[in-house]
Amino acid sequence: MSIRVGIMGYGNLSRGVESAIRQNEDMELAAVFTRRDPKSVQIRTEGVPVLAEEELLSWKDKLDVLVLGGGSATDLPVQTPKYAEHFNVVDSFDTHARIAEHFANVDAAAKAGGHVAVISVGWDPGMFSLLRMVSDAVLPEGRHYTFWGRGVSQGHSDAIRRIEGVKDARQYTIPVEDAVEAVRRGETPDFTTRQMHTRECFVVAEEGADKARIEKEIKEMPNYFADYDTTVHFISEEELKRDHSGLPHGGFVIRSGVTGMEKENRHIIEYKLTLDSNPEFTGSVLAAYARAAYRLAKEGNSGCRSVFDIAPAYLSSKSAEELRSHLL
Amino acid sequence: MSIRVGIMGYGNLSRGVESAIRQNEDMELAAVFTRRDPKSVQIRTEGVPVLAEEELLSWKDKLDVLVLGGGSATDLPVQTPKYAEHFNVVDSFDTHARIAEHFANVDAAAKAGGHVAVISVGWDPGMFSLLRMVSDAVLPEGRHYTFWGRGVSQGHSDAIRRIEGVKDARQYTIPVEDAVEAVRRGETPDFTTRQMHTRECFVVAEEGADKARIEKEIKEMPNYFADYDTTVHFISEEELKRDHSGLPHGGFVIRSGVTGMEKENRHIIEYKLTLDSNPEFTGSVLAAYARAAYRLAKEGNSGCRSVFDIAPAYLSSKSAEELRSHLL
Repeated sequence: MSIRVGIMGYGNLSRGVESAIRQNEDMELAAVFTRRDPKSVQIRTEGVPVLAEEELLSWKDKLDVLVLGGGSATDLPVQTPKYAEHFNVVDSFDTHARIAEHFANVDAAAKAGGHVAVISVGWDPGMFSLLRMVSDAVLPEGRHYTFWGRGVSQGHSDAIRRIEGVKDARQYTIPVEDAVEAVRRGETPDFTTRQMHTRECFVVAEEGADKARIEKEIKEMPNYFADYDTTVHFISEEELKRDHSGLPHGGFVIRSGVTGMEKENRHIIEYKLTLDSNPEFTGSVLAAYARAAYRLAKEGNSGCRSVFDIAPAYLSSKSAEELRSHLL
Repeated sequence: MSIRVGIMGYGNLSRGVESAIRQNEDMELAAVFTRRDPKSVQIRTEGVPVLAEEELLSWKDKLDVLVLGGGSATDLPVQTPKYAEHFNVVDSFDTHARIAEHFANVDAAAKAGGHVAVISVGWDPGMFSLLRMVSDAVLPEGRHYTFWGRGVSQGHSDAIRRIEGVKDARQYTIPVEDAVEAVRRGETPDFTTRQMHTRECFVVAEEGADKARIEKEIKEMPNYFADYDTTVHFISEEELKRDHSGLPHGGFVIRSGVTGMEKENRHIIEYKLTLDSNPEFTGSVLAAYARAAYRLAKEGNSGCRSVFDIAPAYLSSKSAEELRSHLL
């Protein structure tokens, strides 16, 4: 019998989970739940119901795992603990400063309900975290660097859209090539924020808007842009649609460490992602961890986990014997 | 209290484990065991005894985990099951065709003795396996490629040394750059063996030896060289010592896969290692899994595991809270 997966929400990430489920023969999409009017939501998997969030709890016996597709700012801090009491759940919570709090809330709820919850799943946090952690354990005397891009940052794009006179915008995060090359060569510098990434913005201004003011507001925006070398290009709506409609992303984690009695040998571990679609890749990682959550629960486990707490074999549909003979 | 580690054998790999233990504050080297005359073995950690293998079983209560530094051909098939009954053990077994058999033997012994054994630990098998497996689970529709090098293959160097008239030799495995670039671009070709790697040999011939015959014997050696484009350089003993005394290695695993309802988006996952010292890096991975074996056993587990079966957090000396706040 397939693993019956429910998805809460139907934004980009949820659509990524939906298409990932189709690629995993041991999983099936059972239902999508939404806060919108279900009739207004058209999903891409035939024969699967779209239901109002209010109906979710009545699906307790019809879902093996629930993937939460919402955002970290307001959705997940409420939804993950709420639903972890009733379902095995997986989320992509990425507000770093609040992970401890979120973990504690979700853990209490999951334990109370006897379910398994996996939080902060995706590529960063997620795959990148795994690489940072394992590399840190293997090369304890070293440093790690995380570079993001070239790719679209949705948070930064949204921040630009909130500026008066901006009709639409797309922001790319770009690693500074010199910094990357220095780390790959084995150097372990202290970089400033500005030295690691640049930001490139493509902005559609409203008719008659003051472009100089918009550019200044972007470049001086604290946290988002002020600490970076930022480039702003004003383009037409058509150009934005034609050249910037995808959501590519990626980046790399590099750990540089030394071994030897005199620390005379250096080792560089690099993990690099080049993603055509950020939400589809993230959705694929969520699907694999949804499988893990279901299996861990089936074995009688409960509580909250991160990617650090799950043996890799739980992610795969293949048997232990298959994994050992084909991938070890 | 530190994790008390014993090492069986004292070759290159064991020395790599020895130096790794020094870099891990929660571990201490308790003793080294050898089949040679212990008096003839000079280790690099002060105050640690070197003992004959015959004394190993009397150390049952003085070791938390035993790292087996021997080779896969004849040492480990015997030693790992033998000692898994009495100790938590970690090995670097890498004879791929015999992994199923080795796993079964070690599992039975470890379960009989109530210990945890981790086999096939290192970078390949080991870190590369982990990357292949996790990437396969995350991108189920895709292909993976493993490239090794540029680095010294000790097995191939040994094979050359067995040829008559060869005094010493060093063999480098080198990935074919065109093949690597094709995969990085997202192509998923079927490569022949020859298309993925070349082999470069540095040979010191004995005085008066027939170099043409040696070169021919190398290039035609089945399994080792016949399927590859092989280059042979004859050099002096001094040159070998000066230019080829290190044991660098590395390589990369690349997974290329697609997602999307129409499989329209491609994703490339690349994991790359650049290692100054193959045995020291391998030893560092063994040390991290030695910690994991000890901890798993302390929790009451027993039996054989591979890297697929161990949650990453077990590898680290850091607490779950530290890992979540610094590396997630």
